Amino acid sequence: MLKLGIIGTNWITQQFVDAAIESGEWQLTTVYSRQLERAQEFATHNHAEETFTDLETFFSQGSFDTVYIASPNSLHFSQAQQAIEHGKHVIVEKPAVANQREFQQLDTALKAHPDVLLFEAARQLHETNFQRVKQQIDQLEQVQGATLTYMKYSSRYDAVRAGEEPNIFSLNYAGGALQDLGVYLAYDAVGWFGMPEEAAYYPTLTRTKVDGKGVAVLRYAGFTVTLNVGKTSNSFLSSEINGLRDAIVLDNPAELGRVTYRDADGQAHELGVQPDANPMLAEARDFAMVINDPTNHQREYLAWRQLSRNVNKLLFNLRQSGHLYFTGETRDAVK
Amino acid sequence: MLKLGIIGTNWITQQFVDAAIESGEWQLTTVYSRQLERAQEFATHNHAEETFTDLETFFSQGSFDTVYIASPNSLHFSQAQQAIEHGKHVIVEKPAVANQREFQQLDTALKAHPDVLLFEAARQLHETNFQRVKQQIDQLEQVQGATLTYMKYSSRYDAVRAGEEPNIFSLNYAGGALQDLGVYLAYDAVGWFGMPEEAAYYPTLTRTKVDGKGVAVLRYAGFTVTLNVGKTSNSFLSSEINGLRDAIVLDNPAELGRVTYRDADGQAHELGVQPDANPMLAEARDFAMVINDPTNHQREYLAWRQLSRNVNKLLFNLRQSGHLYFTGETRDAVK
Repeated sequence: MLKLGIIGTNWITQQFVDAAIESGEWQLTTVYSRQLERAQEFATHNHAEETFTDLETFFSQGSFDTVYIASPNSLHFSQAQQAIEHGKHVIVEKPAVANQREFQQLDTALKAHPDVLLFEAARQLHETNFQRVKQQIDQLEQVQGATLTYMKYSSRYDAVRAGEEPNIFSLNYAGGALQDLGVYLAYDAVGWFGMPEEAAYYPTLTRTKVDGKGVAVLRYAGFTVTLNVGKTSNSFLSSEINGLRDAIVLDNPAELGRVTYRDADGQAHELGVQPDANPMLAEARDFAMVINDPTNHQREYLAWRQLSRNVNKLLFNLRQSGHLYFTGETRDAVK
Repeated sequence: MLKLGIIGTNWITQQFVDAAIESGEWQLTTVYSRQLERAQEFATHNHAEETFTDLETFFSQGSFDTVYIASPNSLHFSQAQQAIEHGKHVIVEKPAVANQREFQQLDTALKAHPDVLLFEAARQLHETNFQRVKQQIDQLEQVQGATLTYMKYSSRYDAVRAGEEPNIFSLNYAGGALQDLGVYLAYDAVGWFGMPEEAAYYPTLTRTKVDGKGVAVLRYAGFTVTLNVGKTSNSFLSSEINGLRDAIVLDNPAELGRVTYRDADGQAHELGVQPDANPMLAEARDFAMVINDPTNHQREYLAWRQLSRNVNKLLFNLRQSGHLYFTGETRDAVK
């Protein structure tokens, strides 16, 4: 049984812990929160034995072998780095890093700790429907493009409109729609079509100077993929991948709840399966599989690392194109 | 009763003639086709008295007072100019011209013939649902953007793939998806939101070097409107205009068959009416209304002219951004 430690006690952490337990591969041993009361509450609720309020002590004294990190985006990198240095495997929520320099620094840390594994928690990759879409794309006579939309009005935008600056709408915490929701669409695009030749981002800025909404145009040889992201608006649109007369229609390109192939006659064929009730179950199983037997799963692991590298590069390129820089981030962060 | 002459004997001409007759305002008197047999066949079928195979004779001897022009795009401008010079009112299919220079030349011709009226046949403008959408946009607390999609696989793309070059896929005939389908979306955007501050077009070129498909990004103060057009692919997406939590959903942004308001709770409210069976009926009525009493309808007429000017300017700007130039068109056609 793998031993899990967690940073963060919010709903997504709970969801991952639930998935980890459900997989039968993990037990929760250790909880970190800056607030003791929150750590104890979460630990009690989830039958964990250890709680810490100091991060260094958490890493040096905690009995876990893998940490799951779901802190604000801006903390992912440094916490992942710290975990690696303590010889802990890392599952870090997407986006794992803000730019390629940070990605390279994690690579360097991993080289110094060759037994440590690092996973970016891109849950959709691990789901059957993601692979089914990929297989159907490979069968299209000709890919003619795609329009992928993921927009949900965030209740925290009400706070922005009221004059506040919540983390997810703050440059101080690497916020914005592209980082928060666009990362799913970037995984779709890079996972299904590879890296684009060119990428442009057209952000709509909030009062707090993050992209509350945005349109990304990715140019591939022979087609264009458009990504619509937004946290300041709801969308009722489906998403689609275009063939010639045919298309693949997705109810939601991040959740992949229902994926359908519309053939040249417009006939609908279900491509997918009913997703797991807990959307993090598949990744919790996959990460355990690799940690339990890294030698025989090196191929998958390296493929995920490469995808993670490319997605983070694409997101950074898009931010550059939209002139969006996080607090303290140098503009040559790719060099 | 207004007397109508027509250039072109294809299905769209038949549809306009049907609409004109149904309106009770028009009679078809005169048919022009380069082929006598086609002219006579169309005239007989529609009870017209005159047929011509020479364009100059058609204009100088035909007894009609208004011409409807539905020739290939590249001929619209010169035929409209010729009609004005013969003192005929003009209804010309969209896009009326290829660039602003041509638009200005038509303005000059109209100045020399002050009693002549020129209409670009942007049928959707005249439909109730177009106005209903506009009214709902005005009621949104905040416009956050729009994604408008109009893509239909053209059977003529099969010919392109087989090595041919049909007019609508030819730079020689001012073809391509933007001119053919994008003009509808440009009318939506300019009609509903005004002229954008910036506009970029990302075309996907066919073997014949026209845009078989493309994505246009229009930037307004505070929001972005994305237009998806394509003749080399089918789309199954709806279109939408985003508010904050609410949105306006369109089944098809050119046909406007069904327009729905989704309120902040996601509840759907029908905004529109059942469109006319013949989608050109409303414009046939409106054009007759203005021709019959131009003095009292100058406001509408001038508004349509201004919209036409802006739409043609936008389409040209988008083509420039996508490096798309028609045969014989100079690159400074806007100067």
